[in-house]
Amino acid sequence: MTRTTHQHQRFLSDLFPQGDCLFRPEELLVFGMDASRLDARPMAVVRPREARQIAELLQYAQTERIPVYPRARATNVVGACVPADPRRTGTQEPQGIVVSTLLMDSIIDISPDDFVAVVQPGVITRDLQQNVERQGLFYPPDPASLNISTIGGNVATCAGGMRALKYGVTREYVLGMEAALPGGRMLRTGGRCHKNVVGLDLVRLMTGSEGTLGIMTEITLKLLPLPEATASLLAGFSGMEQAVQAIRNVFRAGMLPAALEFMGPETLDCLALRRTPPWPGNVRAALLFRLDGTSGALKAERRRLESVLQSDADCTPVWQAAGSGPQEEEPLWEIRRGINPASYLAAPDKISDDVTVPRGMLLPALTDIAATGRKHGLTILTFGHVGDGNIHVNIMHDKSLPGVREKAVAAKKEIMNTVLSMGGTLSGEHGVGLTKAPYIDNQLSPVERQLMAGIKASFDPEGIMNPGKAY
Amino acid sequence: MTRTTHQHQRFLSDLFPQGDCLFRPEELLVFGMDASRLDARPMAVVRPREARQIAELLQYAQTERIPVYPRARATNVVGACVPADPRRTGTQEPQGIVVSTLLMDSIIDISPDDFVAVVQPGVITRDLQQNVERQGLFYPPDPASLNISTIGGNVATCAGGMRALKYGVTREYVLGMEAALPGGRMLRTGGRCHKNVVGLDLVRLMTGSEGTLGIMTEITLKLLPLPEATASLLAGFSGMEQAVQAIRNVFRAGMLPAALEFMGPETLDCLALRRTPPWPGNVRAALLFRLDGTSGALKAERRRLESVLQSDADCTPVWQAAGSGPQEEEPLWEIRRGINPASYLAAPDKISDDVTVPRGMLLPALTDIAATGRKHGLTILTFGHVGDGNIHVNIMHDKSLPGVREKAVAAKKEIMNTVLSMGGTLSGEHGVGLTKAPYIDNQLSPVERQLMAGIKASFDPEGIMNPGKAY
Repeated sequence: MTRTTHQHQRFLSDLFPQGDCLFRPEELLVFGMDASRLDARPMAVVRPREARQIAELLQYAQTERIPVYPRARATNVVGACVPADPRRTGTQEPQGIVVSTLLMDSIIDISPDDFVAVVQPGVITRDLQQNVERQGLFYPPDPASLNISTIGGNVATCAGGMRALKYGVTREYVLGMEAALPGGRMLRTGGRCHKNVVGLDLVRLMTGSEGTLGIMTEITLKLLPLPEATASLLAGFSGMEQAVQAIRNVFRAGMLPAALEFMGPETLDCLALRRTPPWPGNVRAALLFRLDGTSGALKAERRRLESVLQSDADCTPVWQAAGSGPQEEEPLWEIRRGINPASYLAAPDKISDDVTVPRGMLLPALTDIAATGRKHGLTILTFGHVGDGNIHVNIMHDKSLPGVREKAVAAKKEIMNTVLSMGGTLSGEHGVGLTKAPYIDNQLSPVERQLMAGIKASFDPEGIMNPGKAY
Repeated sequence: MTRTTHQHQRFLSDLFPQGDCLFRPEELLVFGMDASRLDARPMAVVRPREARQIAELLQYAQTERIPVYPRARATNVVGACVPADPRRTGTQEPQGIVVSTLLMDSIIDISPDDFVAVVQPGVITRDLQQNVERQGLFYPPDPASLNISTIGGNVATCAGGMRALKYGVTREYVLGMEAALPGGRMLRTGGRCHKNVVGLDLVRLMTGSEGTLGIMTEITLKLLPLPEATASLLAGFSGMEQAVQAIRNVFRAGMLPAALEFMGPETLDCLALRRTPPWPGNVRAALLFRLDGTSGALKAERRRLESVLQSDADCTPVWQAAGSGPQEEEPLWEIRRGINPASYLAAPDKISDDVTVPRGMLLPALTDIAATGRKHGLTILTFGHVGDGNIHVNIMHDKSLPGVREKAVAAKKEIMNTVLSMGGTLSGEHGVGLTKAPYIDNQLSPVERQLMAGIKASFDPEGIMNPGKAY
């Protein structure tokens, strides 16, 4: 049923004229992979320029029962953009149509009166942020990929980021959307109101659904007033325990920083491989804070944060603080962004996870993950948005060495089990995609799966939307 | 099918022993009304003490196709707790079983490490807030009813409140829940993690579903660090236009107050009927701000707010500000809380709405509502959470006078239409319930209704949960 026929090709070429429909193997290759490095070959790639085309495609695809795989910049690290359904084993046939939303990349409206932005799904998150900031407005969600990922992808995965601690995740900023659904129905739900409780919450149901319900064609986002100033502060600690205690002290002082990033001992070691670190050798864990607010308030807030951190005798003194102004702060965040490139100096291959635990389980989780690394003789980096209990785990390994890939996979499984036994979740930000799908029955109950299947069926009765992903 | 038989009575009495099952007319009367003042007579009221009883009830009710109406303190103003299904016309038969969650009122856990609270649905919101605040924690959602309404009801309606501007609505604080579903299935979804993107978002789907999908038996809520201090400030303006301009100025300065309440001219007049107002006669609109944060930051923030407000020559000078400390601030908020009692000095009857418009449509909406009042010769109070575009509308009238009720209803309809034509929503906080159900097809599209019906069916295939409500 998913083999490309001439009829299919003709339909697609008519609907997506002038090079907006791709069939050549080298083109299909490009659109078959995402940042998970998994790949599969689709039967075609289409690049719609307007919502109507997507609706017509989804009408046809439902009738023909052709799988449809939406995609934008494909920065997804769990394979959610890969055009493959692992449940269809034994087939090497190309498995469906990839829909790239990259030609739908207009910022339709930025309203300083309504505090909303209306965008097409292919808009790069950073572009939106820069545009709204020029008008004194603020779109807080800041996934690490924001320079290259799109709003459509951010909404499809309910992306988090560093500022989620104070400002919440993408879900909190989606006010409305237009989406094409299988069968060609157009869903318009929510709107420009900051509050709305009429009917079931379809807006937040679509958010984080990983392309399994429909394809968003327009998204209305909530904006905030742009904080006048920001300040950043990096503090070093003698160990993970001391760093976690410092987090507690900050919260206990009634402070909720805009960002609170953690770097564990293995991560600091890795950063030192790339560049002489600015911290003394006794620093074995670090916290990177960002505060924001009006200028006067921010000064007081920064003094308060410094005094809270310095009040703890167990703390290595605060070693560096950058004042207000993005330029002054940049060197600190450059360190944080250096983790990914530095990680490959430890080993050439990586299994990357973004487990999340209840905040109080942070230290036990970090300790357990480090022990798992030692047990398998692998460097496992831990860092990330600890204010949310969200730990990025990089299992570094060299898969060219015999037995090492197996050890890395075993370590991943152990970490998943540890996290779930602590009341944690397999993913705080990345989603399930293909790579975590084998584990979700350890987290989701049969009742949850049954309800999700029922919901899916009311959006997508033939199961054509991104099949085999997520749930 | 919903007539009480002896068999029904025996089943219910066995499952809810020792006075936890009520059949007497005078008891049924009490549990048949909510704050909408609508009422209906159920065939029985049950008061479960544990989740298992609710699951068994919902198994039985599904088999017997008996409607089930969940309820806690029934502060709902749109009839969502009234045991009636208006689609079943012509029957005077009692229509189902009311489930009161008031005996399930335990705070199960407050964790200063995880920053979560786990509660049963019958816990009063204020009780939870006071308990968490004693431990330096903060549960921001503060619907006006918080002294008497429950967490279960707050989650079922996705309650808002004054602090929603900075902190978001109830949805943003629900991390996990346990719920009994029709057929007796138990749903446990989400948990204690502050971030979680595994599977479709059932937690937020249940939030705001007005009791139409199942009955929550346990709720896990996100907590924040308690801000060290708060300050409040009341500013008077010569008119609505000047007040709305002041809101713009505050946002433009990069400030996001914890609360920003508006009181229109008719509301100020009404307050003056009850008590000599503290503002001069030329004040025709007022804004009430609350700021919060660490003490030092708050002082700077307050100075900044005062300077922003005073910088506008059109503004009547700021006339009263209360410093940090709840006691000092209380008189200002006492004025805000006085609106409801004062309203009845204008007229004995009220139609109360909570429409919401895109923030930029605030002034046109307020102006239109005032014109509607003048046209019908009715006093219409406008006040509320204008930072969110959420306007509380009280259509005051005396229904004992000939033709007046009809005028009030006509005014309501006109306001609904005005709001929808501005891209607004019929409800920002209260929900749809019975009273707004006749209007929802003006807001929701057939595709949305179809999807909601499909979702409903996967939770509640026989349609026994709070039938006739919401969507």
